[in-house]
Amino acid sequence: MAVYTHLSAETLGDLIAEYDVGEVISAKGIAEGISNSNWLIETTGKNGAGDAGARFILTMYEYRINVQQLPFFLNLLDHLAAKGCPVPATIHDREGNAYRELDGKCIALIEFLPGVSVDRPTPQQARAVGEALAQIHVASADFPMQRKNDLRPADWRKLFDQCGDGAIAAINSDLAQSVSKHMPQLLLEWPTDLPVGTIHADLFPDNVLVLGDQVSALIDFYFACTDFVAYDLAVTHAAWCFTPDGREFNRDISNALIEAYSSICALSEPEIAALPILAKGAAMRFIATRTYDWINTPADALVMRKDPMDYVRRLHHYDALGGSAFSPLA
Amino acid sequence: MAVYTHLSAETLGDLIAEYDVGEVISAKGIAEGISNSNWLIETTGKNGAGDAGARFILTMYEYRINVQQLPFFLNLLDHLAAKGCPVPATIHDREGNAYRELDGKCIALIEFLPGVSVDRPTPQQARAVGEALAQIHVASADFPMQRKNDLRPADWRKLFDQCGDGAIAAINSDLAQSVSKHMPQLLLEWPTDLPVGTIHADLFPDNVLVLGDQVSALIDFYFACTDFVAYDLAVTHAAWCFTPDGREFNRDISNALIEAYSSICALSEPEIAALPILAKGAAMRFIATRTYDWINTPADALVMRKDPMDYVRRLHHYDALGGSAFSPLA
Repeated sequence: MAVYTHLSAETLGDLIAEYDVGEVISAKGIAEGISNSNWLIETTGKNGAGDAGARFILTMYEYRINVQQLPFFLNLLDHLAAKGCPVPATIHDREGNAYRELDGKCIALIEFLPGVSVDRPTPQQARAVGEALAQIHVASADFPMQRKNDLRPADWRKLFDQCGDGAIAAINSDLAQSVSKHMPQLLLEWPTDLPVGTIHADLFPDNVLVLGDQVSALIDFYFACTDFVAYDLAVTHAAWCFTPDGREFNRDISNALIEAYSSICALSEPEIAALPILAKGAAMRFIATRTYDWINTPADALVMRKDPMDYVRRLHHYDALGGSAFSPLA
Repeated sequence: MAVYTHLSAETLGDLIAEYDVGEVISAKGIAEGISNSNWLIETTGKNGAGDAGARFILTMYEYRINVQQLPFFLNLLDHLAAKGCPVPATIHDREGNAYRELDGKCIALIEFLPGVSVDRPTPQQARAVGEALAQIHVASADFPMQRKNDLRPADWRKLFDQCGDGAIAAINSDLAQSVSKHMPQLLLEWPTDLPVGTIHADLFPDNVLVLGDQVSALIDFYFACTDFVAYDLAVTHAAWCFTPDGREFNRDISNALIEAYSSICALSEPEIAALPILAKGAAMRFIATRTYDWINTPADALVMRKDPMDYVRRLHHYDALGGSAFSPLA
């Protein structure tokens, strides 16, 4: 969570002049994003008059992002914003480009939306998130682009293989045992024929801005892809319905999230039946990337490593709870 | 340059409720500050109406700051802001406190001022900075508090001693030689009887916000202290009048800075005569802290180490130029 690149005021001024948003009056590097640098930019607004205090997020894509996939992410934002979803629209430059290059890296200018990310969501907030998630699933039904999910069960397996059993066990023996126990089932029994759509795939509380009980923005769509919509609900469930360390399951939040989502997007019988394995998979997906990052993050990185055990605990809960974790649907 | 502490939206909301500034509608950790964490906070404004989009900087003091000195820094901001200087005023809480405690650390809420920090200042910007520096020297003449400068020549010597000759030479042999050659003179010949005032003592381009050619804010007063006012001009000169790596001296910027400053605060003959040694001292002060930080910054710190050689080169320039570095006054 850092700004990896220094952009001088002069460079920034020249860049912003490529957009019809007025002149820069403030620019602060913000401590968000792991694979990109972000700045909160304030400008004089269009034509330098009237809407003073126009604000934008400038994102520079530093790592991990395949530039060829940027049009998917940025067009998706525009598609959803145009349909009234609470997502920031992309600001296009004077020539209509959704992104530009600067110092050999891609950058995009994105609408700033107010709101704060909560650590301890309330059921009311979980309800609003469930509705917003359903809203983007509905709104993206006619989104014409597709992107393969590159974090499916076979990909988790590859990440664990790259880590090596010894290194995984060295982090925590329960971690190693949980991977050995559950990965085979996930690989064998992962659904193949559930309804597919455009999913966020990473809707953590970090990636939701709220104002009181209202969702003001869903952000950080850089894992968005084409996959089972019910898997998106499972990821969101895993992210929202436990204490951050995964020790405690919060039934009220779970019920609120699921009721709100399914009031807009009714789940089919096969989707409901698949929720337990999708949720175990959602936990395993974060175990996989966190384990990989734990082993591969240099000690001097500007990034805080996240503990994979937070998601091992969630995996244990899902294993024990089965369908009852999703009881309003059971 | 990082946010060292996670503040939940809930904690932040409770904190901001202690001030008469409305409710939080956005909070972004910003990548500024080495010894503190900072957030750019937007609120609904007083009474939640009218001045929507009120913005503040929330600072949490993490390291280095002696809490007993906070009143000096914060009262100085209020004193200067009240006199119309371009500095952010401190926002006091409902009980009138300029700072509060949160999780055992001190925090202050400070006015947000627009502007950007330039990397390559123009002579016009240097002129505006010279005027603003003089303005704070004039405005602080009746500031009643005092704070000893804890980075004077004997303190630099202590920092070098703590580093050890071997470690200094291991960074760069020219660094070691420059310290050996110039520290004795600085200790022996450092002025003792120049006019004293309240000085910023760290007025780098980083710490000045501009809008075009105008200074919109002087910020980061956490090295402010009571010392020779001409030393403040020397520090500012060292910070502004060279390329960042110290290789090139920019005469136009130097002239603009000195002319603008002295048009408001005329320097006495002894001050003018002392400028060469004050400037060498200014270079040595940053050599000392950068050398110390270079040796003592853990490899995994969230802080980028700054190269002390940038200031060794400035020291060489000042040694070679003598009084001619300040030619409008010579």
